[in-house]
Amino acid sequence: MLPDRAFFDSLADAARSQTLPRFRVGTAVANKLHGGFDPVTEADQAAELAIRELIINSFPDHGILGEEHESIGLDREHIWVIDPIDGTRAFISGVPVWGTLIGLRSGGRAVMGLVDQPFTGERYFADGSASWYSGPDGAHRIQVRDCGDISNAILFTTSPHIFSTAERSQYDRVESKVRLFRYGTDCYAYALLAAGHVDLVVENGLKPYDVGALIPLIEQAGGIITTWDGGRPEDGGSIIAAGSRAVYEQAMDLLAGR
Amino acid sequence: MLPDRAFFDSLADAARSQTLPRFRVGTAVANKLHGGFDPVTEADQAAELAIRELIINSFPDHGILGEEHESIGLDREHIWVIDPIDGTRAFISGVPVWGTLIGLRSGGRAVMGLVDQPFTGERYFADGSASWYSGPDGAHRIQVRDCGDISNAILFTTSPHIFSTAERSQYDRVESKVRLFRYGTDCYAYALLAAGHVDLVVENGLKPYDVGALIPLIEQAGGIITTWDGGRPEDGGSIIAAGSRAVYEQAMDLLAGR
Repeated sequence: MLPDRAFFDSLADAARSQTLPRFRVGTAVANKLHGGFDPVTEADQAAELAIRELIINSFPDHGILGEEHESIGLDREHIWVIDPIDGTRAFISGVPVWGTLIGLRSGGRAVMGLVDQPFTGERYFADGSASWYSGPDGAHRIQVRDCGDISNAILFTTSPHIFSTAERSQYDRVESKVRLFRYGTDCYAYALLAAGHVDLVVENGLKPYDVGALIPLIEQAGGIITTWDGGRPEDGGSIIAAGSRAVYEQAMDLLAGR
Repeated sequence: MLPDRAFFDSLADAARSQTLPRFRVGTAVANKLHGGFDPVTEADQAAELAIRELIINSFPDHGILGEEHESIGLDREHIWVIDPIDGTRAFISGVPVWGTLIGLRSGGRAVMGLVDQPFTGERYFADGSASWYSGPDGAHRIQVRDCGDISNAILFTTSPHIFSTAERSQYDRVESKVRLFRYGTDCYAYALLAAGHVDLVVENGLKPYDVGALIPLIEQAGGIITTWDGGRPEDGGSIIAAGSRAVYEQAMDLLAGR
């Protein structure tokens, strides 16, 4: 039996009740520096525990791969892939572009996923065949857009500082060709790509739990997400996501120096 | 007679009714490229007109300095300083860190200001003596924080690409000393600084309407905002804002190469 939307929502709600009360806690930095209460780490760990508890109760035969706690049953057919707070730096800084990522893999393939942004009230969900948005402005199915050519594209990346020197040259070739680029959006970038607001995301150093929920969201919205060498993205690493095949291929050529 | 909070709110509400319906309009990019409907420019112009109309009705003897339309009476005692959409690139990209900025100058000095973020429902307001927040998590007075030393500071800037070569070296000296830096936040950075979530903002190339509303918000929350050479910030240019005197002076020394 596979989970339904209501079960995913219950996981996101449980995480939200742990993260949101610890967001924009004014004393975060000072106290962390003095070795005391650390809201972001607490929120991260508590949210993942809350999610795990619900999964273990309802799907005891599923595996779990999370950021904060030990993996369970990674050889099982169904594996939950969880990042309770993607965008820790955004969380610490008070910017609501962090999110809770909850993905489900079946037979090694990412098949369902949810991205929750508790502060803005946005939730992005891939149900196995389509991607959906709900937020302050309503709820609807989402699809990527095709901007036609990389010269029309909006590109997002977390920060140019994430790349090594060689990767930076590869990335810079892409950045130099787009219409507009933007830094500092974490998982929010992929959600906006799935919803047809941006066209390209190029990043590296991603962990499996950074992309587990995002892969189905983008694929089921009609987009493409692979590694920089064109492979399946489930294991993370260097990742590219695009809203159309044409722009994906243009960006892949630039990454490869073709 | 000076305006009250209710009047500022009515301005922000009028702007919101023009901006929010045009945010995340999926066809924005394609249509702009084909010379047709351009949601961000339309939103910008319509929001400023809506604000101007209310001001002219209620305060006909006040001047107006806006981004989108011609200035009125810049020699008058009271001047409204308006940026209907600060963070156009964020608006285009679907990221809710753009804002509507409405400031009031009296005798050349920025004395009241409002920053509105319609999508998240956040509103930051400086009433002439104190700064206030309202949003999905309630309403309260805000104050900057003192992180003690630049090595503890969170620094925001719009993008490292905004700086000339010389300014970039100045900026880089600051960036190299902070605990965490972040790009891509526009006016939202200053609001978060006023609310005590971040410690430093360093930017350049700002116009008077980019800072008019932000100056009182930061100063009345206990923060400091000046040009890079320590002057009053009302005319914009190269701007630094800090949550405490100590961190401000450390950053100013780094900018100056001292």
